[in-house]
Amino acid sequence: MHDYIRDGAEIYRQSFSTIRAEANLANLPPDVATVVVRMIHACGMVDLVDDIAFSADVVSAGRAALRAGAPILTDANMIASGITRARLPADNDVICTLSDPRVPELAHTVGTTRSAAALDLWREQLAGSVVAIGNAPTALFRLFELLDDGVPAPAVIIGVPVGFVGAAESKEELEKRAPAPYLTVHGRRGGSAIATAAVNAVAREDE
Amino acid sequence: MHDYIRDGAEIYRQSFSTIRAEANLANLPPDVATVVVRMIHACGMVDLVDDIAFSADVVSAGRAALRAGAPILTDANMIASGITRARLPADNDVICTLSDPRVPELAHTVGTTRSAAALDLWREQLAGSVVAIGNAPTALFRLFELLDDGVPAPAVIIGVPVGFVGAAESKEELEKRAPAPYLTVHGRRGGSAIATAAVNAVAREDE
Repeated sequence: MHDYIRDGAEIYRQSFSTIRAEANLANLPPDVATVVVRMIHACGMVDLVDDIAFSADVVSAGRAALRAGAPILTDANMIASGITRARLPADNDVICTLSDPRVPELAHTVGTTRSAAALDLWREQLAGSVVAIGNAPTALFRLFELLDDGVPAPAVIIGVPVGFVGAAESKEELEKRAPAPYLTVHGRRGGSAIATAAVNAVAREDE
Repeated sequence: MHDYIRDGAEIYRQSFSTIRAEANLANLPPDVATVVVRMIHACGMVDLVDDIAFSADVVSAGRAALRAGAPILTDANMIASGITRARLPADNDVICTLSDPRVPELAHTVGTTRSAAALDLWREQLAGSVVAIGNAPTALFRLFELLDDGVPAPAVIIGVPVGFVGAAESKEELEKRAPAPYLTVHGRRGGSAIATAAVNAVAREDE
């Protein structure tokens, strides 16, 4: 069999080195570049950087919020599962309300998806939080509606929903509104692995 | 704000319709095409199909195994979290041993990553199982070593590890060996979202 590298630290080192050699990171602030390297690592595509849009202070704002104990609110159980708790600086809560028993009824009442309705359970926790939406475009759209409704804004929004219906549009809206410092991937690409990598990279400075 | 579709069923319908219109699925057996549609849905890229390789019976074999009660063994907690339990036909066990307390010591003894060492805890359950490796190339390489060591083969292997070190090579080896019916995505792309989508699609016939 093809021999292979078994040393986890060496695998990370070579992976990040390959990404930095191949991806065009020159136009990114250094702290955003470090986060984008991890997002690329999670999906295997160096050209992801071409679709990245961000606020210059998104990483510093996210890191400060987490250090101050902000919760992480996410639309997908996979993201909640993938966030490395050891990287979180203040034993931060990681909250996904999608499986809350109130959600199906809320979705029915509001007339939307369960992913979007789940955000109605964020109202009390949204102020100053770190939001990571990596699955449902409807969840990102619903976030804008909550903010329009007067719910206080999060500290940062990592908004990378994926797919073919509403994903590109919701992320364009995120850039246009920028209701908080944000990080996104324009177009159809995104998803829970990329969202998780972004949160894990924002959480701690070291690559 | 840009208006958006809030009906979950309609979002799925339009998404799958767009994928079927844009992706070149003509060379795939119908059951494999249905699985690939869901994998594309999870990553937003219709050209994923160009990198797909598979055994013609992978879906039927995986479905039969699950109906017979086979466990699903996976290398990543995110995948275990993302598998939709309601789609599983026999209340199948979903097992990820990565967080088992024995794994760090095993990794040290074997001299490999924790992701690979976690597979040593699959030995008793591997025969006839549905394997989904979506994160670590070292886990897929370790699977080949276990099989070389005489551990009985799984029913199917969904092998889509992601990344820059060993991912492409481990998936080439999977196609070359084909120790069981398999489904893979050649190259660097892959990951937990794509692996989860594949398992969820294999689990149940309806799109």
